[in-house]
Amino acid sequence: MAAPRRPPKSSASAETDTPAMILVEPQLGENIGMAARAMLNNALADLRLVSPVQGWPNDQATKTSSGAEVVLENVRVFHSTAAAIADLSHVYATTARDRDLTKPVLSPRAAAAEMHKIIAQGGRPGVLFGREAWGLDNDDVTLADAVISVPLNPTFSSINLAQAVLLIGYEWYQAGDDTPQSGMRLAKKTRPANKAELIGMFEHLERELDACGFLRPPEKRPAMVRNIRNMFQRAGMTEQEVRTMRGIISGLIRRHQRKQD
Amino acid sequence: MAAPRRPPKSSASAETDTPAMILVEPQLGENIGMAARAMLNNALADLRLVSPVQGWPNDQATKTSSGAEVVLENVRVFHSTAAAIADLSHVYATTARDRDLTKPVLSPRAAAAEMHKIIAQGGRPGVLFGREAWGLDNDDVTLADAVISVPLNPTFSSINLAQAVLLIGYEWYQAGDDTPQSGMRLAKKTRPANKAELIGMFEHLERELDACGFLRPPEKRPAMVRNIRNMFQRAGMTEQEVRTMRGIISGLIRRHQRKQD
Repeated sequence: MAAPRRPPKSSASAETDTPAMILVEPQLGENIGMAARAMLNNALADLRLVSPVQGWPNDQATKTSSGAEVVLENVRVFHSTAAAIADLSHVYATTARDRDLTKPVLSPRAAAAEMHKIIAQGGRPGVLFGREAWGLDNDDVTLADAVISVPLNPTFSSINLAQAVLLIGYEWYQAGDDTPQSGMRLAKKTRPANKAELIGMFEHLERELDACGFLRPPEKRPAMVRNIRNMFQRAGMTEQEVRTMRGIISGLIRRHQRKQD
Repeated sequence: MAAPRRPPKSSASAETDTPAMILVEPQLGENIGMAARAMLNNALADLRLVSPVQGWPNDQATKTSSGAEVVLENVRVFHSTAAAIADLSHVYATTARDRDLTKPVLSPRAAAAEMHKIIAQGGRPGVLFGREAWGLDNDDVTLADAVISVPLNPTFSSINLAQAVLLIGYEWYQAGDDTPQSGMRLAKKTRPANKAELIGMFEHLERELDACGFLRPPEKRPAMVRNIRNMFQRAGMTEQEVRTMRGIISGLIRRHQRKQD
């Protein structure tokens, strides 16, 4: 049995219920392809380019998209940022540097939560990413409703364009994802041991440890038993593992008995 | 005034209070460099390699690290996964595929929280990443205490090695980061308007709108005033913007008055 899995989510063609990612004057096709891959990893499909420096389509982009062609095939190219965001209701600008502009500033996590709410209310959000070398112009930032700033090591905060897209997409996907944050992944054909099986194993072990004199002196026995039980308890054993452990106990005894013979 | 900033965190040389990132048989130096960059973005410094396929050091790694040489200079190379994790107390294996092994499975977010706790208790955590083409061997996964599985689009979940390092590092950094999730970034040399300034502007505007007959008929005036005030209220204006707005009101009146002359 595998860990609980979320049912498949919005397909890549469902573009109206996911935020648009808008790359402004991206310089390298390679980064566009990697951004497309990062988008599809996070079930995002609406990629827009403003005046890509190497033109469009771009072979390098196809190569680095690692199979995310569905995103590249639906790319729309615009001649201005204003045209690229015309149909959107809420626009975020990703910036690393401080700008001399008064704007709300959000972490990717807060922006992701907000974008889910905006879509639930019938709005259309999008995120602007600047060119690799110098980011967004102040004119582009001004067009945005808010700024997204990724909290990173302040002494080394520059990230690659595709990595910025990945982090925004990742937070978007996590905010809509209901996979439990933790759990137990089980091997196939087994199940967690029940308490009767576990206690049966404890008693088997303690019987043999009494027999070989390990649980002495008697006044220390209760604490020793508690510690041993606790250790195995913590291991969260499966039914198969309990049987294996009982086999180990029996096997060790047989070896010991043979030596004594 | 910029948005609140966190004080600089643990430097890259403080290796004992951050998790180790262990790349098992990485195939491309390029990916090692990008992983180093992603680590330093997130204030991680302890990079270990198990039998890198192209040997070590590697020029491509230096090139793609984009200045994260401090991480590359401190890389340690090992001949086995067991040797690479010998000094660690808790090891996580990143896997995309389901394995036929019973293990706790955590999201990157849950693992990050757990790793912070482990370090606070004096433990040393580390995360194993498999080779680009096929991930970790089951033998390597078996050495780990738990599995980290990134919740991603189930129909397109394969991510690049450096991107996997980025997502784990990002969650690690976010878990220890106290930057507010949202706030207002202010332009320099200004401050939020106080209510006297804002209400002064409202009254100025309403006086002029009364004068030009905009706020009619009288029975609709209260609702119109409320809606206009609310719109400006929502804008969260600075003291400078209030002055600018009052200038706009006066300017428009002067233009109107000139036309009437």
